[in-house]
Amino acid sequence: MPGAERTAIGIIGNQGWIDESPFAALRGIREIIHVTKPYKLVGRDFHPSDTVIKIDDKTKIGGKNPLVIIAGPCAIESREQIFKTARYLKRLGVPILRGGAFKPRTSPHSFQGMREEGIEMLDEIRSKIGIKVVTEVMSPEYVSSVASRVDMLQVGARNMQNYDLLREVGRTKNPVILKRGLSSTVEEWLASAEYILLEGNRKVILCERGIRTFETSTRNTADLSVIPLVKKLTHLPVIFDPSHATGKRDLVYPMAQAASAVGAHGVMIEVHPDPEHALSDGSQSLDLKEFRKAYARILQLAGFIKKNRL
Amino acid sequence: MPGAERTAIGIIGNQGWIDESPFAALRGIREIIHVTKPYKLVGRDFHPSDTVIKIDDKTKIGGKNPLVIIAGPCAIESREQIFKTARYLKRLGVPILRGGAFKPRTSPHSFQGMREEGIEMLDEIRSKIGIKVVTEVMSPEYVSSVASRVDMLQVGARNMQNYDLLREVGRTKNPVILKRGLSSTVEEWLASAEYILLEGNRKVILCERGIRTFETSTRNTADLSVIPLVKKLTHLPVIFDPSHATGKRDLVYPMAQAASAVGAHGVMIEVHPDPEHALSDGSQSLDLKEFRKAYARILQLAGFIKKNRL
Amino acid sequence: MPGAERTAIGIIGNQGWIDESPFAALRGIREIIHVTKPYKLVGRDFHPSDTVIKIDDKTKIGGKNPLVIIAGPCAIESREQIFKTARYLKRLGVPILRGGAFKPRTSPHSFQGMREEGIEMLDEIRSKIGIKVVTEVMSPEYVSSVASRVDMLQVGARNMQNYDLLREVGRTKNPVILKRGLSSTVEEWLASAEYILLEGNRKVILCERGIRTFETSTRNTADLSVIPLVKKLTHLPVIFDPSHATGKRDLVYPMAQAASAVGAHGVMIEVHPDPEHALSDGSQSLDLKEFRKAYARILQLAGFIKKNRL
Amino acid sequence: MPGAERTAIGIIGNQGWIDESPFAALRGIREIIHVTKPYKLVGRDFHPSDTVIKIDDKTKIGGKNPLVIIAGPCAIESREQIFKTARYLKRLGVPILRGGAFKPRTSPHSFQGMREEGIEMLDEIRSKIGIKVVTEVMSPEYVSSVASRVDMLQVGARNMQNYDLLREVGRTKNPVILKRGLSSTVEEWLASAEYILLEGNRKVILCERGIRTFETSTRNTADLSVIPLVKKLTHLPVIFDPSHATGKRDLVYPMAQAASAVGAHGVMIEVHPDPEHALSDGSQSLDLKEFRKAYARILQLAGFIKKNRL
Repeated sequence: MPGAERTAIGIIGNQGWIDESPFAALRGIREIIHVTKPYKLVGRDFHPSDTVIKIDDKTKIGGKNPLVIIAGPCAIESREQIFKTARYLKRLGVPILRGGAFKPRTSPHSFQGMREEGIEMLDEIRSKIGIKVVTEVMSPEYVSSVASRVDMLQVGARNMQNYDLLREVGRTKNPVILKRGLSSTVEEWLASAEYILLEGNRKVILCERGIRTFETSTRNTADLSVIPLVKKLTHLPVIFDPSHATGKRDLVYPMAQAASAVGAHGVMIEVHPDPEHALSDGSQSLDLKEFRKAYARILQLAGFIKKNRL
Repeated sequence: MPGAERTAIGIIGNQGWIDESPFAALRGIREIIHVTKPYKLVGRDFHPSDTVIKIDDKTKIGGKNPLVIIAGPCAIESREQIFKTARYLKRLGVPILRGGAFKPRTSPHSFQGMREEGIEMLDEIRSKIGIKVVTEVMSPEYVSSVASRVDMLQVGARNMQNYDLLREVGRTKNPVILKRGLSSTVEEWLASAEYILLEGNRKVILCERGIRTFETSTRNTADLSVIPLVKKLTHLPVIFDPSHATGKRDLVYPMAQAASAVGAHGVMIEVHPDPEHALSDGSQSLDLKEFRKAYARILQLAGFIKKNRL
Repeated sequence: MPGAERTAIGIIGNQGWIDESPFAALRGIREIIHVTKPYKLVGRDFHPSDTVIKIDDKTKIGGKNPLVIIAGPCAIESREQIFKTARYLKRLGVPILRGGAFKPRTSPHSFQGMREEGIEMLDEIRSKIGIKVVTEVMSPEYVSSVASRVDMLQVGARNMQNYDLLREVGRTKNPVILKRGLSSTVEEWLASAEYILLEGNRKVILCERGIRTFETSTRNTADLSVIPLVKKLTHLPVIFDPSHATGKRDLVYPMAQAASAVGAHGVMIEVHPDPEHALSDGSQSLDLKEFRKAYARILQLAGFIKKNRL
Repeated sequence: MPGAERTAIGIIGNQGWIDESPFAALRGIREIIHVTKPYKLVGRDFHPSDTVIKIDDKTKIGGKNPLVIIAGPCAIESREQIFKTARYLKRLGVPILRGGAFKPRTSPHSFQGMREEGIEMLDEIRSKIGIKVVTEVMSPEYVSSVASRVDMLQVGARNMQNYDLLREVGRTKNPVILKRGLSSTVEEWLASAEYILLEGNRKVILCERGIRTFETSTRNTADLSVIPLVKKLTHLPVIFDPSHATGKRDLVYPMAQAASAVGAHGVMIEVHPDPEHALSDGSQSLDLKEFRKAYARILQLAGFIKKNRL
């Protein structure tokens, strides 16, 4: 397509993403504009209908299913702490417990999680208490061993582009929560999900958890507009984590409601029986009573929204 | 307060912000940490109760008052366009019409607004149609003249730190919508509001409209978590502009609902009778029918939320 | 240009920037990609050779001319302070003195500058001491009056998109230093320069002064790579301000050297006779002796680079 | 330390970083300010003198040693390509060859590197050609096997917070280049280095490679001011990668010179014998002749700077 001062050349008929490198280096190329996206399996072009992931008989994430709430402490700190939380949440009707056993921490001098021991507790909890459990995996080598003892896996923001890890969780059959990286674009996030789907695991749940910006009055900047945006681009479910996105206890409840209003398929909330003694992220955790109150209101609003969808 | 390797020195008893410069330059100073904020009049310390701004007999912004909706085109483009929109919105019950006469545009080669002529139209509309009008001012010299012909003034994101402009709108009696700058922190935003209050005008409405981040799939990144955050810091009302925050028509309605859920006192939405022929921001404008549908739903959700406050 | 699933439509033969709005709002448009830039006069397409701005008989900024150094305090604080600095710099051979009379400050409770009185001092200094002077203008209404009493004008980062101000400095004959906005892209920066050139003033000097990012260990993030980049896009000279870019006295000298190595046409450095008592930005100011030492080294490196250009 | 409206409480006498979580969650805490840094071994407090890492008899990185240049292709693509480059660089006197065998790529549909086969080639090159080799490791499980066949290891930006990987390279004896994460603060970067040192490997070389910001005219934003800043905080050497930082061939040479001027201990430059046919990052690679020319100039400037240090 000739122009006054430059010529546009289009590559047409391609099936899927084309690596730009061979073109980028050609002399005379001013700019390369991708029209095709760096993913295919996660896009709606080849899979227009919503992916719905069944968690248990009553709980499904995605599509038109009701908002799913995942709750629990940032880190498993003791047998007492995690069992107490699990029992409380189970009684309330929360379907999924979160709890970190392997903790990625900025400083090697911070608490690193109970690791193996924590995984054992989660396994015990799911059989004894009957709540589903999700936990983070950080290294490819632990994936299969952890996958057999928990219901769902989580890939954290810091590991969103740890491709060997993505491939490994792609080889399990567990649903995988894939958190958005701190400074990852929507396109990169979906391309990371593509790594998992390509290995055969199609049960990926995307989770927005705030991005890093210049603003420091919140821990991260919650980017809620990506929720309706991503729902157009992909068939995968999308949930929101108001605890990490804001880092402030007072903002967790209002932002959970906002996520619900904007169409999130679920919210993941940090709850701790004793936030004042939490070893990690206490300042953004609700205590059990605060959570109970918020939980009732979240379900109430979600119910209203479901009935009155535009 | 002596430490092992450094000494902390506290300045106590001060009333209000202390300029750090004289201290910053002293040799031996490693870091200066402000505890006092760079504003005083806008903070809750000296004015704990919510500021409520009366717009007309039925419309008040702030406090526990119902969500207020402001709507209209990005720019006034013709007599027909702005009158048609004003009449339509008036019929729906929208209390405030927005319409830009002076348009700040990145390129001098883009449409710059109808300027004086646009202001005249707004003045005519408010008397003939009976809807309140708000418009942006860009230069101190026009402020008093514009202020006499419109109901409310707006200071845009690009001018959030145009201090002479802030002082000038501070000398009017009109309510002022102060948009957050593209890369302004919450603290800077509130300090800019302080400029207005210091001149005597206390009717400032803060408006979040998205910040600039690395993400390019939306025009800006809507930072909704600042709404509950700012409501704790200041007594001033806070509204949200989903049109500029997202830049995408499809995201305007869901984000307006999210803002309502998170506690915004109002939302400002771009509406154009014929977005396909808009001279500015057509891609983020709703047409009249889309707006009517969204408007009904927004009021519905806002009503539900008001009844069921946590 | 038909593709498998979408069609690319090119607009060709246009002279200059096309406003995207009328196209953006058309249904069926997925994405609009600008090939033409939002500026024309500042680009090299129509003005391939470097603009060189003559300051005095020995000093020219731009093209292959030697690195120009501008120095002085952030703010004029007293007659003694500014005269002492001016005399010292004149003796060293520094051609241009900077000194702020109108100071844009985040908080209205911070020192706002000596305003008119400061301008008077600058006028006196240039006639009595014989050093050229540059100062910031913040409002259109003051521009012509200030322009007659100083040699060069500066538009600060906060006002880079204050379009009425840009137009007003565009109507003067003074060289104008246009600082890059805190979160402005290169394209926006050049489009702002276009506003000035369009009014007839072609003596614009672009000044990189750091952008706002997530990193807080420096005041801003110095984006030095834009210097060689911008030199390819525009014929205008480009200088660097290491004082504001870093906010730390220790980083000023090394970053000034880096700017010289990367091809800047000049550097602007904050110098204060007594940084420990500066009313503004003392922590990033060099004292007179530190400056003298740095100055000699900067000239030395600049000389070496000039002789050994790639 | 009592204040008018709040009380400051200091924790003194601590040796090293204190985890904030137990304090953050206490009711009544408004803000927690760390004075101690989240690292200890990498800081200058306990190790004031510069770490110097010996690469071969003539090459040392760190301290007052001459600028070290590392060069080579982004990815190893064929035996011919990497051997040709290695021989060319060896002849020029470049001490270290870079070449990626395991490539982290955003899209799973892009070229992923030659993996094992590439490592074999590097091993052969170092014995046959006698140039030192550095390559990236992406997963803990490959580290020890790769470490035995190359001279230096690299941890890429995407893996800067892959803590199991950091621990694993910390158990080798190879020098490790630790790239700064795309959106990592200086503090997080140094805390990641601490993970490596804690395992016993003190030969860490920090590498700035650009951060992610709103600016899209360069691939990343080169943050050169961190080089002098980090040199004050840590005893470890700091190098710069102008190829990834800018993503543009034309900017590589000027930014390498700027890094040298600002005090970097080394620069790492992408060189490809045939950039037009590179499978990865061709647009930011120099060809052999461009590199030879740049190399001579870089050494020349580095020599001048060494002689004329401030």
